[in-house]
Amino acid sequence: MMSAFGKHPRFVIKEQQPLNAGPPLHMLPETFVTPQELFYVRNHGTVPSVHPAHYRLGVGGLVMRQLSLSLPTLHALPRREVCAALQCAGNRRSELAAVEPIPGELPWGAEAVGNAVWAGAALRDVLEAAGVLPGARHVAFSGLDEVERQGRRFGFGGSIPIEKALSDEALLAYEMNGAALEPLHGYPLRVLVPGYIGARSVKWLAEITVQDEPSDNYFQAHAYKLFPPQARAATVDWSAGTMLGELNLNAVICTPGHGARLTAGQHSLAGYALAYGERPVAAVEVSRDGGATWAAAELSSEAQQWSWRLWRAKLHLEPGQHQLVVRAHDTAGNTQPADLAGRWNFKGYMNNAWHRVEVIVSE
Amino acid sequence: MMSAFGKHPRFVIKEQQPLNAGPPLHMLPETFVTPQELFYVRNHGTVPSVHPAHYRLGVGGLVMRQLSLSLPTLHALPRREVCAALQCAGNRRSELAAVEPIPGELPWGAEAVGNAVWAGAALRDVLEAAGVLPGARHVAFSGLDEVERQGRRFGFGGSIPIEKALSDEALLAYEMNGAALEPLHGYPLRVLVPGYIGARSVKWLAEITVQDEPSDNYFQAHAYKLFPPQARAATVDWSAGTMLGELNLNAVICTPGHGARLTAGQHSLAGYALAYGERPVAAVEVSRDGGATWAAAELSSEAQQWSWRLWRAKLHLEPGQHQLVVRAHDTAGNTQPADLAGRWNFKGYMNNAWHRVEVIVSE
Repeated sequence: MMSAFGKHPRFVIKEQQPLNAGPPLHMLPETFVTPQELFYVRNHGTVPSVHPAHYRLGVGGLVMRQLSLSLPTLHALPRREVCAALQCAGNRRSELAAVEPIPGELPWGAEAVGNAVWAGAALRDVLEAAGVLPGARHVAFSGLDEVERQGRRFGFGGSIPIEKALSDEALLAYEMNGAALEPLHGYPLRVLVPGYIGARSVKWLAEITVQDEPSDNYFQAHAYKLFPPQARAATVDWSAGTMLGELNLNAVICTPGHGARLTAGQHSLAGYALAYGERPVAAVEVSRDGGATWAAAELSSEAQQWSWRLWRAKLHLEPGQHQLVVRAHDTAGNTQPADLAGRWNFKGYMNNAWHRVEVIVSE
Repeated sequence: MMSAFGKHPRFVIKEQQPLNAGPPLHMLPETFVTPQELFYVRNHGTVPSVHPAHYRLGVGGLVMRQLSLSLPTLHALPRREVCAALQCAGNRRSELAAVEPIPGELPWGAEAVGNAVWAGAALRDVLEAAGVLPGARHVAFSGLDEVERQGRRFGFGGSIPIEKALSDEALLAYEMNGAALEPLHGYPLRVLVPGYIGARSVKWLAEITVQDEPSDNYFQAHAYKLFPPQARAATVDWSAGTMLGELNLNAVICTPGHGARLTAGQHSLAGYALAYGERPVAAVEVSRDGGATWAAAELSSEAQQWSWRLWRAKLHLEPGQHQLVVRAHDTAGNTQPADLAGRWNFKGYMNNAWHRVEVIVSE
């Protein structure tokens, strides 16, 4: 296989080992589909180099038949395609860290998100080929990467409920935006779980295990859990946290940027909004006065089940300092919490408070 | 329908009426899939505003059953997807115009090209539903736009051979990169003819007509014909030109740009290559001395049937003026002509001479 190039010249590296990177925030709403070269990368270990001829996907656990599937076999299954957003559970962590520090976690801005056209086999087709046995409740995944935690080396892993694994939208993806997955995005095969935190879409997929309980992998059993604002790492009962799965309703101002200096007059705002589960984003509103008054933003394109929605708005800004705010509403009438402090948790996950951007406007 | 946003902030407008625009050339090789918002737009008339509920696609001519198809009917047909490059027949015209002026035509650089993931119904499925009658040789398309030529107003049109219309790859596309087609790209429906000049992928499709000869539309019968270098517009027999269809083998240096001032040392080159018909690009070579010596470029990702291939290379450049050159080879051993003058034609079509970029290197 020829190597692919992978990284956009404007890709921002946050950490080299393991590699974590994302696009400049203002570029996100410029395109409905995020180019693979600009799509955020959240790794916990090595980027494996996989020889396609030697690759096998193992399927085991509570199944009638254990499987070992080659890439040609996987590619021969009916091809499914879904346009879906992925978002890291730690997206917008840096806002939480400004309330109280969050040591040991990546200080993501709002750029750990992207929207792509994924293609691959239905996870359901592979599970049905193996034959799911009664008692199956969860489907666990583990990757070929090497992560080091608590003195052990292992592949990144996680699990999803069996109902989600058998859904129309869960894929074993080998393509992203019409091209083979780049190594950074999980070549030759990754799970794609639309509507769930990115961590469940395990890259460089090695093994699928059908089981009666969630994965005991570190990243399911320990990390990626949500604790209340008063919990602290040193004293917490780790078994008590809520395992993360579905994403929450979210909206972000990508431009103008925080601290932007503008001149008085009409200004364009743009950003993205993400739905919670199966309820689409119905409306996005913006405020120029910290949330006291609101105006409707314009939404791009029609709502699709799993993709994000881009939005834009024009606001007239007088001289002075202003706090721009955005919030989304879904079709079930849900909206986002206003309060950032109430969203604080010591791992810095799932921040979906109103997104606020301070700008300074001169004459 | 909600309006979509359509244009990238860095999109370069070449002409306002009709709208013609493209991306900055250096951005093309940054992403394998060209975002819809950066994909070149080549229009000859208005951009129609189509109400989806009122839209109907007519199918007639040499068919058993005339059809009038609504959008829901078209969306209910089996969904096909193809990753394909589109290229304007006038791409790289400005190089030809530097040899001898080409009045009345858009001076495209090498940016009238893009690569996208298209989805829609198979053209074949619609033709089979109508029932193609014996004697059918060509399939003609006409659009809802209004073009004015020779004192008449009509929709842009063209045709392709029946064999291509019945191929696996010919689509009636309603999606581009996972989103609805933007109005600029043909919403709600366009033809997509992979491997052919962009003009045959008629936008805002109104009518399909199966017939025994090519379309008599101005843009098939008069424009988009290739004439030999000695022909001139004033004296030519328009009926004698070759109707354009398949694209030719092509390769372009997108960066560095023409006239770039560099400092001596190692420099990165990047660009795209396009295959001729069904033979993939097999290799790309670059030269730093006007074509006297050549080095292999690295190709991105595996060859796909209808998509472009991106390439990159590193060259060490000494102080002085250098002519960088690129050329592609296909799997059948074809390569491109060296000579730009030999490609000159008074309409400025199909320039696929070696692409040359002059750079000035200082100490």
